Amino acid sequence: MVKAEVKYTGGMQFVATSDSGHAVVMDADSDVGGSNTGSRPMELLLMGIGGCSGMDIISILKKKKQTITGLEAQVNGTMADDYPHKYTEIGIEYIVRGKGVSEEAVKRAVQLSMDKYCSVKATLEGSAKINFSYKIIEE
Amino acid sequence: MVKAEVKYTGGMQFVATSDSGHAVVMDADSDVGGSNTGSRPMELLLMGIGGCSGMDIISILKKKKQTITGLEAQVNGTMADDYPHKYTEIGIEYIVRGKGVSEEAVKRAVQLSMDKYCSVKATLEGSAKINFSYKIIEE
Repeated sequence: MVKAEVKYTGGMQFVATSDSGHAVVMDADSDVGGSNTGSRPMELLLMGIGGCSGMDIISILKKKKQTITGLEAQVNGTMADDYPHKYTEIGIEYIVRGKGVSEEAVKRAVQLSMDKYCSVKATLEGSAKINFSYKIIEE
Repeated sequence: MVKAEVKYTGGMQFVATSDSGHAVVMDADSDVGGSNTGSRPMELLLMGIGGCSGMDIISILKKKKQTITGLEAQVNGTMADDYPHKYTEIGIEYIVRGKGVSEEAVKRAVQLSMDKYCSVKATLEGSAKINFSYKIIEE
């Protein structure tokens, strides 16, 4: 079981601490009474899907002996117009940087993460359609 | 549209930066090649639901002129045994602290967040059954 404690710290600020021992500050925008001292809760979902799948992709590409010098995930989420404004669509573009990287290996790594391994993706796709693409930058 | 950029920073570490300008470090456990320098991606989902609903509850209780001295959300998530180990159940206990707090007001605030306002809850409930309870501590 995964656990987190989320504590109110004034204004609209909350500090979350999880079992792994790390804290994340969340806050709202000033137009809803916050002070923007931390991430929006909905942003954490996009961060999570990028980190989760990123770890899978790095892990698989290392096993495939690829020389990776960088990986970025650009994630965007579209929320429903009506309350409660859930995510209806999430798009991720992976930018893989490396030397002589095999496109086949990258394609397979991204697909394995999306289809089989990424727990965050599997959780979010209950509500949101997940679209993804990748590009490789030789450097 | 909500956006986040998630960047690989070595080992299994990723740093996510969102549109609001805040960064969150993610890392894996040492048994999967990480160095535990940041939260697990799956932990961010639990932090997010606690923060999102916490902001709703604080906001509603302030409008109802309740004297709130503290709010915590204890969140736990149960993952499926099989890959991709998505969340199948998420439990949240809210602990509301205050002076002369109306139980009816707390009950209504929690229900409004869960049923109507919390975008993170609405997104996660596509996969996970969300259970919630509250207790009030007079102080």
